[in-house]
Amino acid sequence: MEVVASSEDRNFTYIPKGFDIPSDIDYLYICSNNTIYGTEYKTDIDSPVPLIADMSSNILSRPVDVSKYAMIYGGAQKNLAPAGVTFVIIRNDMLDRVVRPLPTMMNVKTHVENDSMFNTPPVFPIYVLRETLKWMKSIGGMEEMYRRNQEKAALLYAEIDRNSLFRGTVEKEDRSLMNICFVMSEGNEALAPEFLEFAKSKGMVGIKGHRLVGGFRASCYNACPKESVEALVACMQEFEAMHK
Amino acid sequence: MEVVASSEDRNFTYIPKGFDIPSDIDYLYICSNNTIYGTEYKTDIDSPVPLIADMSSNILSRPVDVSKYAMIYGGAQKNLAPAGVTFVIIRNDMLDRVVRPLPTMMNVKTHVENDSMFNTPPVFPIYVLRETLKWMKSIGGMEEMYRRNQEKAALLYAEIDRNSLFRGTVEKEDRSLMNICFVMSEGNEALAPEFLEFAKSKGMVGIKGHRLVGGFRASCYNACPKESVEALVACMQEFEAMHK
Repeated sequence: MEVVASSEDRNFTYIPKGFDIPSDIDYLYICSNNTIYGTEYKTDIDSPVPLIADMSSNILSRPVDVSKYAMIYGGAQKNLAPAGVTFVIIRNDMLDRVVRPLPTMMNVKTHVENDSMFNTPPVFPIYVLRETLKWMKSIGGMEEMYRRNQEKAALLYAEIDRNSLFRGTVEKEDRSLMNICFVMSEGNEALAPEFLEFAKSKGMVGIKGHRLVGGFRASCYNACPKESVEALVACMQEFEAMHK
Repeated sequence: MEVVASSEDRNFTYIPKGFDIPSDIDYLYICSNNTIYGTEYKTDIDSPVPLIADMSSNILSRPVDVSKYAMIYGGAQKNLAPAGVTFVIIRNDMLDRVVRPLPTMMNVKTHVENDSMFNTPPVFPIYVLRETLKWMKSIGGMEEMYRRNQEKAALLYAEIDRNSLFRGTVEKEDRSLMNICFVMSEGNEALAPEFLEFAKSKGMVGIKGHRLVGGFRASCYNACPKESVEALVACMQEFEAMHK
């Protein structure tokens, strides 16, 4: 494995850009949205080699040019359905490029050749996935889904930037629409546990950041309504007023 | 792979018995219940080598002496929960006997070391599994579950043996409590489609036998109530009366 680009130098707080993709590598792998650090590829990059993306955490959150990818895969449990089903979108010519000996179940070709019915499928998560897709279509498809996700994220990032007690951790242009990471601003670090408690008293749980990053993380997946984001913004404003 | 015993000579209609298990093989594999042909191991066999059983289709249908097995595994979708979760019961000393290079996800050791939380677990099927286990415990555990399964199977096999239009396909002592296979009796083969239609008109579907066997198959898994078996028996009796 060769690392073509990394943002480790600044603790993964941005998406590398303008890097060279060697034309002699087998494929280029990206994770389109970093759940832990809250960065996201906002556009579909061009690659001279097959581009493979794990889109678990931002699949169907915006229109995607599928033709730019050799393979897109992920777990459905963030934006599509309950945990228990995964999705793979693969270009036909990739199916014969497996060189390692693989257990039958692990080879995507097995599932393509069996119309995704090689094993007993996880019926309930698939049923809910279908209902979710119908809902997305009914609201206006990816254009509307993307508009809603942008609107939610803009609301929260605006409050993070305005509120004197908080600051965002990610370069503005690379901020994820899905996982919004922030910390207490300089000098206010000690207030973090109090804010978590305060948010909890308002019924907001699960906003503690990943242990690798600390701080806070608000995940605004497709299923998260604008009202929930507004409630968090109100909570942050109230908390700021309490500490003026 | 070495086949230690087979019932292929009589189209898999019985469970081989009294066969020798070579002491120099790595393990002995059995499928404890044959879903397609309707045969079932009624007792836990003794093996001089590690015994590995796929119990997908009769797990928790009767008390099992787990200590006789090196590994028991299966899909939960027949007796335990909705499709989407699998179970593995493995003896600790087996974990280090993997010799093939395996993808991380496919190695049971990965899941043991991570308390079954290596990946995002399929929450809904696991939740229903828990409810099912609580229900089994509440009715009296495996003793009562076994009694109910024996009662259901006895009802249906008695009708198959009594009814002049039908006959069972499996040796009596090896008949599965879970998958009850039968066909039209000699001379009445042509009535099969009509019986399927008649059963359907009574609301009974899915009793067509597996394409490898033909005829009929009534699956009486744990979740199937005695009333459903009684309904099928009544349907068979009515069908017989129509053709007297």
